[in-house]
Amino acid sequence: MQVINLTEKFGCFTAHWHPHIVADLNDQHIKLAKVQGEFIWHQHEAEDELFIVIKGQLHIDFRDQPTAVLNAGEILVVPRGVEHRPHAPEETWIMLVEPQATRHTGTVEHALTRHELPRI
Amino acid sequence: MQVINLTEKFGCFTAHWHPHIVADLNDQHIKLAKVQGEFIWHQHEAEDELFIVIKGQLHIDFRDQPTAVLNAGEILVVPRGVEHRPHAPEETWIMLVEPQATRHTGTVEHALTRHELPRI
Repeated sequence: MQVINLTEKFGCFTAHWHPHIVADLNDQHIKLAKVQGEFIWHQHEAEDELFIVIKGQLHIDFRDQPTAVLNAGEILVVPRGVEHRPHAPEETWIMLVEPQATRHTGTVEHALTRHELPRI
Repeated sequence: MQVINLTEKFGCFTAHWHPHIVADLNDQHIKLAKVQGEFIWHQHEAEDELFIVIKGQLHIDFRDQPTAVLNAGEILVVPRGVEHRPHAPEETWIMLVEPQATRHTGTVEHALTRHELPRI
């Protein structure tokens, strides 16, 4: 039963758009990621995705509604099937909760796709 | 697609040990609770439970290992079947992610048990 200090875990890596797994629950991963700049448009067919902003500001574009802007202490659930594009003007730290099967680029294969996520 | 500001949501209620639902994902609830003092020993038969401390300090006792102490910015997953007793020396704000079927007093029926959790 290990208490996880988020700041300490964020100190374990530097790469952007490369989620790291810190814990599991109910067949889901809890992941940390540092993001900056623009990610790709993608969707997850069968997985809802929880974004929790720890530091910075995360923007999430949608096809048919205004961009969501999340600051530290704000959260958003992106439901399955909803196409979205995250981006961040500055380095932003996020925590994600999503099913273990979730690929972070969804149904899209891209240079940013990571098939093996490290555990920290 | 609604951004949820945690501070704003915590401002919607005052009761201790009474979780409020703020969002759903993958058949789970995301809940906020204000806690202070001692909760009861309980376990969840089939549900892992994620504790995220937003403000204050949460202590979680276990039967066979040292008490976990979580400060703001720290998280802990309590696996299914592990008996635990949360307590907090001061008012502490926590966010929980757990399956919708989870009762916060687990298999124990107690004066603190809430059968209907409000949505905020």
